[in-house]
Amino acid sequence: MTFVRDNISRLAGYVPGEQPQAGKFIKLNTNENPYPPSAKVIDAVQVAAQKLDRYPDPVSTAFRMAAAEVLNVDPEWIVCGNGSDDILTILTRTFVDQGDLIRLPDPSYILYRTLAEIQGADYEEVRFQEDWSLPESFSAPDPRLKLVFLPNPNSPTGTMVNQQEILELADRLPCPILIDEAYVDFAEFNCIDLVKQNEKIMVSRTLSKSYGLAGLRFGFLVAQPSMVEQLLKVKDSYNCDSLSIAGATAAISDQAWLQDNVAKIRSTRQMLQEKLSQLGFEVIPSQANFVWCSHSTVEVKPIYEYLKENRILVRYMSYPNWKEGLRISVGTDDQINACLSLIQSKV
Amino acid sequence: MTFVRDNISRLAGYVPGEQPQAGKFIKLNTNENPYPPSAKVIDAVQVAAQKLDRYPDPVSTAFRMAAAEVLNVDPEWIVCGNGSDDILTILTRTFVDQGDLIRLPDPSYILYRTLAEIQGADYEEVRFQEDWSLPESFSAPDPRLKLVFLPNPNSPTGTMVNQQEILELADRLPCPILIDEAYVDFAEFNCIDLVKQNEKIMVSRTLSKSYGLAGLRFGFLVAQPSMVEQLLKVKDSYNCDSLSIAGATAAISDQAWLQDNVAKIRSTRQMLQEKLSQLGFEVIPSQANFVWCSHSTVEVKPIYEYLKENRILVRYMSYPNWKEGLRISVGTDDQINACLSLIQSKV
Repeated sequence: MTFVRDNISRLAGYVPGEQPQAGKFIKLNTNENPYPPSAKVIDAVQVAAQKLDRYPDPVSTAFRMAAAEVLNVDPEWIVCGNGSDDILTILTRTFVDQGDLIRLPDPSYILYRTLAEIQGADYEEVRFQEDWSLPESFSAPDPRLKLVFLPNPNSPTGTMVNQQEILELADRLPCPILIDEAYVDFAEFNCIDLVKQNEKIMVSRTLSKSYGLAGLRFGFLVAQPSMVEQLLKVKDSYNCDSLSIAGATAAISDQAWLQDNVAKIRSTRQMLQEKLSQLGFEVIPSQANFVWCSHSTVEVKPIYEYLKENRILVRYMSYPNWKEGLRISVGTDDQINACLSLIQSKV
Repeated sequence: MTFVRDNISRLAGYVPGEQPQAGKFIKLNTNENPYPPSAKVIDAVQVAAQKLDRYPDPVSTAFRMAAAEVLNVDPEWIVCGNGSDDILTILTRTFVDQGDLIRLPDPSYILYRTLAEIQGADYEEVRFQEDWSLPESFSAPDPRLKLVFLPNPNSPTGTMVNQQEILELADRLPCPILIDEAYVDFAEFNCIDLVKQNEKIMVSRTLSKSYGLAGLRFGFLVAQPSMVEQLLKVKDSYNCDSLSIAGATAAISDQAWLQDNVAKIRSTRQMLQEKLSQLGFEVIPSQANFVWCSHSTVEVKPIYEYLKENRILVRYMSYPNWKEGLRISVGTDDQINACLSLIQSKV
């Protein structure tokens, strides 16, 4: 293709997890929530559907105010996005010039590499240590380094870097660091309070996972106002539509629903981890709504394929620098039991 | 701001038309449709609201199939976007490297300049000629030229470049040209068929104007499949949410609603143009759902302000290379008559 930038021509493109548009699958492959969202979300969307002729609020004020209350920050510290992928794109375009460097842990979310490639930037992957902490080199200075991505909890492992370590990282780094908290509602702590302590620390969230709203496309960032001011210039003027703003505002206002949902997911996660261990898998204790497992003697790709033949989708992932394994999203107890039964017959 | 790219620091940021979030205004400033959308859209959104826990279809297949039927192209020729602004962003990121050049007519849509600036590219504005055709220099070769934007109908003028001229332009240009047809449903012709004749020609559309769905954020691009393949790599994986895909699919499937709506807007546009002329304004005949007017003896900024005091918003625009004037969106007959009465008292 003659007209396209070289970095785009070379790009394989990010391939999201399979989303079968037809047929009945048990989907345990893209970390969606197995439970329907709060009924208040559906009500809010249905009301908003009656007023679509006007442009949406460019900065999603209603959501910012509701989220500010829940998170104990000012509304001016929040940037809303069309999913947290939009937030990641905005950050890349704000901080990273062509030829600059983005750093990320290995293994982690593959989209970070794609974002670097689209921007014409390089990326550097730094391997986690055995105990899932980060080595010194993750905060090593580099004049080209302009943005660091740190998913926390991480995917596919579900592990976390602790707050003290993140504060020290941010101190040493020459650039902003994004703590991607897509899965943090399922974890024991989060890093929102760290944003106040160092302007280099920014935190992103999504409503796709813990709020059961993957179809709504709504995410947000918490950052200091001096950062927010710059990021708002780069986002599309109307990046969130009227429906998603209304739904997201209702969702974050219903914290009782969230607490109940998170309790159920954590309980099923515990069961999934225990049973996988009993089946001989190596299981990393997860703080997210998925579990990573590998096996020292059994090949797991055939298990992934066998599950798929039986209409259960999980994620098979193979990391050249690390290992291969399955990432299984935490579904309902029934879904997980169905999945485990099939796995049991193959190990 | 230390961490931000220089081009972003320097950027003033695109300022969309005023969107008062409270109070009762007659909004004739952002070219929204004064009529509510097809009831089928509301129904489709309300159904989709009941299934938000799963990720949306990454390529909006349902919409592509419906639009393909209406436009007489294959679904593979269509890229869907979170508003046509998203399409413009995707095009810029696909074709334009830092330091490259984007060309656009002057005057035109201010966002094109912002997109160039965010990308770290330069932009070159080429003045329309007296008869609103483009000069030879609009297709002049330049090794840095990687993308050309041509809104057709143009904003703020509502004028069009004809098909033959566009074909010749594309032949001479060294790069793709985006025909931005945001307003084309109100016009007498469009350029979809030209896409088949030259792979450099691409056409974008939005549902914000003629379908009355500014709040939905849905736009799309028609381009040859070799182009589409590259553009899909650059868009966010899930750039359109389940609600907007459902609503947009219902909207484009209801062509009877569209024809009826367009007939009403054209009739009111004719009335608005005639009365503005009678009040001594210079009016350019418009093919869009807005009318641009200027005045040789009366200053128009005070008129804009007077209208605003009386809760009618129009767009005041001042182009250093050209002139100042008012861009008035075509509302209902009642809205336009209310606006005209106030204007009459000031000229």
